[in-house]
Amino acid sequence: MAAMAADQRTLADIGEFATIDAVTPAFPATAAVLIGPGDDAAYVATSGPVLVTTDLLIDRRHFRRDWSEPTDVGHRAVAASLADIAAMGGTATGLVVGLAAPADLPVEWARQLAEGMAAEAGLVGATVVGGDLTAADEIVVAVTALGQTASRPVRRDGARPGQVVALAGRIGWAAAGFAVLGRGFRSPRAVVDAYRRPEPPYDAGPQAAAAGATAMIDVSDGLLADLGHVATASGVAVDVQAAAFEIAEPLEAVGAAVGVDPLRFCLTGGDDHALVATFDVGAIPDGWRQVGRVDDGSGVTVDGEPYDGSAGHTHFG
Amino acid sequence: MAAMAADQRTLADIGEFATIDAVTPAFPATAAVLIGPGDDAAYVATSGPVLVTTDLLIDRRHFRRDWSEPTDVGHRAVAASLADIAAMGGTATGLVVGLAAPADLPVEWARQLAEGMAAEAGLVGATVVGGDLTAADEIVVAVTALGQTASRPVRRDGARPGQVVALAGRIGWAAAGFAVLGRGFRSPRAVVDAYRRPEPPYDAGPQAAAAGATAMIDVSDGLLADLGHVATASGVAVDVQAAAFEIAEPLEAVGAAVGVDPLRFCLTGGDDHALVATFDVGAIPDGWRQVGRVDDGSGVTVDGEPYDGSAGHTHFG
Repeated sequence: MAAMAADQRTLADIGEFATIDAVTPAFPATAAVLIGPGDDAAYVATSGPVLVTTDLLIDRRHFRRDWSEPTDVGHRAVAASLADIAAMGGTATGLVVGLAAPADLPVEWARQLAEGMAAEAGLVGATVVGGDLTAADEIVVAVTALGQTASRPVRRDGARPGQVVALAGRIGWAAAGFAVLGRGFRSPRAVVDAYRRPEPPYDAGPQAAAAGATAMIDVSDGLLADLGHVATASGVAVDVQAAAFEIAEPLEAVGAAVGVDPLRFCLTGGDDHALVATFDVGAIPDGWRQVGRVDDGSGVTVDGEPYDGSAGHTHFG
Repeated sequence: MAAMAADQRTLADIGEFATIDAVTPAFPATAAVLIGPGDDAAYVATSGPVLVTTDLLIDRRHFRRDWSEPTDVGHRAVAASLADIAAMGGTATGLVVGLAAPADLPVEWARQLAEGMAAEAGLVGATVVGGDLTAADEIVVAVTALGQTASRPVRRDGARPGQVVALAGRIGWAAAGFAVLGRGFRSPRAVVDAYRRPEPPYDAGPQAAAAGATAMIDVSDGLLADLGHVATASGVAVDVQAAAFEIAEPLEAVGAAVGVDPLRFCLTGGDDHALVATFDVGAIPDGWRQVGRVDDGSGVTVDGEPYDGSAGHTHFG
């Protein structure tokens, strides 16, 4: 009954400006916000040059409203951008968000989306500082994150032969959750939740930069695909050791249920936003685990062999 | 024949990464770009806190592919964001762009969009530093601009009774162009071009800030509507003087042809991205012209009277 009593008004019912007024209170001010929402531009403090990354999420392509609550979509949209900032060795400070949506979208959906965004941003002390709202046929969420870094940003192109490849954060969980949801199930709950709300290891990015990481990327296309970006940018080969992956029980269960080697979730699944980086031997910081080696050559292998399906997710494919 | 011989490949034909490779060369590096496209985030130099603004443009709502060339859409999309930065008294340094598009979009359309964006950004010495590309049912262009300001940012809330209202840049031209295009015509060319490629007075923003502007906004919803935002934020009334508007010949011609008082284009039309600001009496800088006064009270009037249709454009309306 509580759900039925909730506010059912749509964006068309209350209009652009009242909708903005309804969602903006979700975003707390922080010390970095010199001017927040409501002017032509926001004004954000930074201790040096600014990191900036942008991502689009499209309804029924990047999320499904029957799979995820609007708060989950907010968490997920912001997590993708915060992970990009972390993958440079930085920490996000502020975000701007564009929302395009059909006129019949409930205001409550937008409000809960904003709450999820604010909660995820709050994990790193960031907040939403501004945005744009407009009508469209399908829901598009455009998130741009600003960040700063205490050390040199870590790029993709610094991996060198002889170095080791290390991973921080969960991997394969979101892909297992996606596999479950795609077959109409809602359990195991642990992997479904991992798909709905990834938990990128935000602190591991600055930690890796401080420890001298030579290349870093967030795993959004799939580990092998993203290591492929590092290998190409660095002009090296990467070999991943399958034995380095301890397959957690829920992934084993999903793999058995859907007839997929659960290692595949770890090697080719996106959406967990784990971080993968290269270090000199002996320089891997706490909380990171070695999963491979950098060699002369090109391309990515698993235990020295090509891995079927390593291309990862691409759009328009 | 040249057009028929042009590259007709679509995003689906060449895929996400090759499309990114096709458009990225349009964006020159500048001194501010410490890390450009191709990593998890870009890294942009700034001389202090960073201004940031984001805008979404939706196909058939903010532009029409049968009205505008892709280069025009690129100019227009970037102009809207650069004008927001100028309206704070700032200058843009870098932009990130998200493009969501159907798989059958020609790569050439995206490439020309990027060229228009780069050309418009180049007017203020800015460039595109990163982006995102994804599949969607309709074209969405998401532009986020970063900027910096040599003086305090000028907000909307500083207008005080007794001050004067001044305008920089063309006004009413884009609305006249829209009226013409909406009726299936392509002339007068001057107003059609003004709609396709607005010419915001970018330098006038920092100039106004340096001259002590107390409030400023870019005219995107319509002059009276945007002055309404200033009046509300500042807790004042604004009166606009109709006689201050010299109606250019093409606007007279369009007004006569479509049966609209051409003053209406100036007072309620958006899309020119003129700048309007308030100053102390005698402080209006060169290139700005007085168009009104700030009074005690609330709301916006024209020659002391309410103006029919002053609400301007709103989404979901």
